[in-house]
Amino acid sequence: MIRPTTFIDSIRLTRYLRQDVLLASETFQHTGSFKFRATYHLASNIPNRHVLAASSGNFGQAIAYSCQLLGKRCTVVMPDNSAQVKIDAVREFGATVCLIDTRKISRKEKVNQLSRELEDVYVASSYDDDLVIAGNSTLGRELAALEGKVSTVVVPIGGGGLASGIITGLRESASTIKVVGAEPLLANDAARSLKAGKLICDTAEARTIADGARTLGLGQRNWEILKTAIPGIVEIPEDNIKEAVRLLYRFANLKVEPTGALGLAALLTEPERFRGKAVCCVVSGGNVDAEVYRSILAEGH
Amino acid sequence: MIRPTTFIDSIRLTRYLRQDVLLASETFQHTGSFKFRATYHLASNIPNRHVLAASSGNFGQAIAYSCQLLGKRCTVVMPDNSAQVKIDAVREFGATVCLIDTRKISRKEKVNQLSRELEDVYVASSYDDDLVIAGNSTLGRELAALEGKVSTVVVPIGGGGLASGIITGLRESASTIKVVGAEPLLANDAARSLKAGKLICDTAEARTIADGARTLGLGQRNWEILKTAIPGIVEIPEDNIKEAVRLLYRFANLKVEPTGALGLAALLTEPERFRGKAVCCVVSGGNVDAEVYRSILAEGH
Repeated sequence: MIRPTTFIDSIRLTRYLRQDVLLASETFQHTGSFKFRATYHLASNIPNRHVLAASSGNFGQAIAYSCQLLGKRCTVVMPDNSAQVKIDAVREFGATVCLIDTRKISRKEKVNQLSRELEDVYVASSYDDDLVIAGNSTLGRELAALEGKVSTVVVPIGGGGLASGIITGLRESASTIKVVGAEPLLANDAARSLKAGKLICDTAEARTIADGARTLGLGQRNWEILKTAIPGIVEIPEDNIKEAVRLLYRFANLKVEPTGALGLAALLTEPERFRGKAVCCVVSGGNVDAEVYRSILAEGH
Repeated sequence: MIRPTTFIDSIRLTRYLRQDVLLASETFQHTGSFKFRATYHLASNIPNRHVLAASSGNFGQAIAYSCQLLGKRCTVVMPDNSAQVKIDAVREFGATVCLIDTRKISRKEKVNQLSRELEDVYVASSYDDDLVIAGNSTLGRELAALEGKVSTVVVPIGGGGLASGIITGLRESASTIKVVGAEPLLANDAARSLKAGKLICDTAEARTIADGARTLGLGQRNWEILKTAIPGIVEIPEDNIKEAVRLLYRFANLKVEPTGALGLAALLTEPERFRGKAVCCVVSGGNVDAEVYRSILAEGH
């Protein structure tokens, strides 16, 4: 059911960056991001007939569609100020959307409350769950096929679900490919954790344009995998995230969301780290509001 | 060397249209459009060391890159009011760009003049050439693999190079898949030709946003193939072209140029023609200026 990633190499991008770069795009995965790998695996491997999750983004759509495909019920807790298109997308996939005023109740409190009320329900985290990591490991196994052609994979980091999954998949395939993380400078909890050698979490959501990386911290399970396997995390200024979105538009015909552009943005931010290496940038997703996308394109003029 | 097309099916797009639709995207072909299929085949199969063409769009980039790959010289005649990004792209691929003031000399006159001056030169038409049709037929052979799953392929029509190539490839594969054309209403010379049973050309370039379909008429070779093989051509209002660009953005994460959206736009324009059929829309290319793309997205609000 999971779609293979779409590999794209653009000679114009490679020449522009003076850097061998291959893109592994998850923008054409079901529901438009890598999240479906995790949610479909999760929903297929639990006995429960109902899945409950909090998400204002890609995880919500992905878990809703996975449950619809598998004939399970799904409830997604979303802030009532979420973009209407995102609420609509989750509903289109048959899930019940529970809108909350986050000034009155946190997502976590609402999930806890609902988990007591709903029957036979599984509470799904979008990253801190072994089933999520196992689902995302399917991308790691695909990337392992690049052995010999690519030495380094650059992966966006939010909660760490994607990076830990890719590392797991590469390990299962006995791959020697290295994983480097890419995180917004404004939400650099993972980079700080790695430097400190212990899990550090932010106390407030960062205002980075990369909304998939606004998580307060890595999950415990993700941290355990990342802390030994990641040689470093590139911390990316906002301007480079936007510039990477524009370069993918211009040179690769790829529509990506800001979080999805973090991998390429890492190459703009620390070119010397990657010089001479054959790099694959994972583009994690493509779902971005037209309004946001237009304003990013406009800044390029 | 030619990249296989990228098949994308979006459940959200299918549900929105209430119509089974598969996309065959050429936006990730080398140089961002199907044109590379034609130019690489052409440049590989001529003895000449120099290729000359007139193009302000995708053909110019594609022939320039093909010649660069094959170590041949390339000269592209472009109007001096062409978008700078397009001129730059052709130059990046090593071609000599010859800018002309089209009020003083036509592209055709300049090409004729240069063809007498340059040595060992092949003058390439972007559609009316057997090698171009043969190059584009590679896409028809790929589409033939959809036999049994898809009954109708919808193809943008400009000069007719893509449609005649696809028909040729499908025939070579003994496919029963039908080809329907998609043409801007403002540049409906092919539709008028089909109705009249003879090749009709416009006298002035139409101002359709689908710039790849602004050609004055079908090529003679393309017409000979299309006239017996195409059951009909859908004539598409400008608004539907733009709406199709937005739907591909929203539901398929696909960045396409207006001409590339013609196939999907045909489904919006004559839904009853396709109802109940399994349709594949060919997305011919993705190269669109950010300015134009932004304004199309903005109109959706």
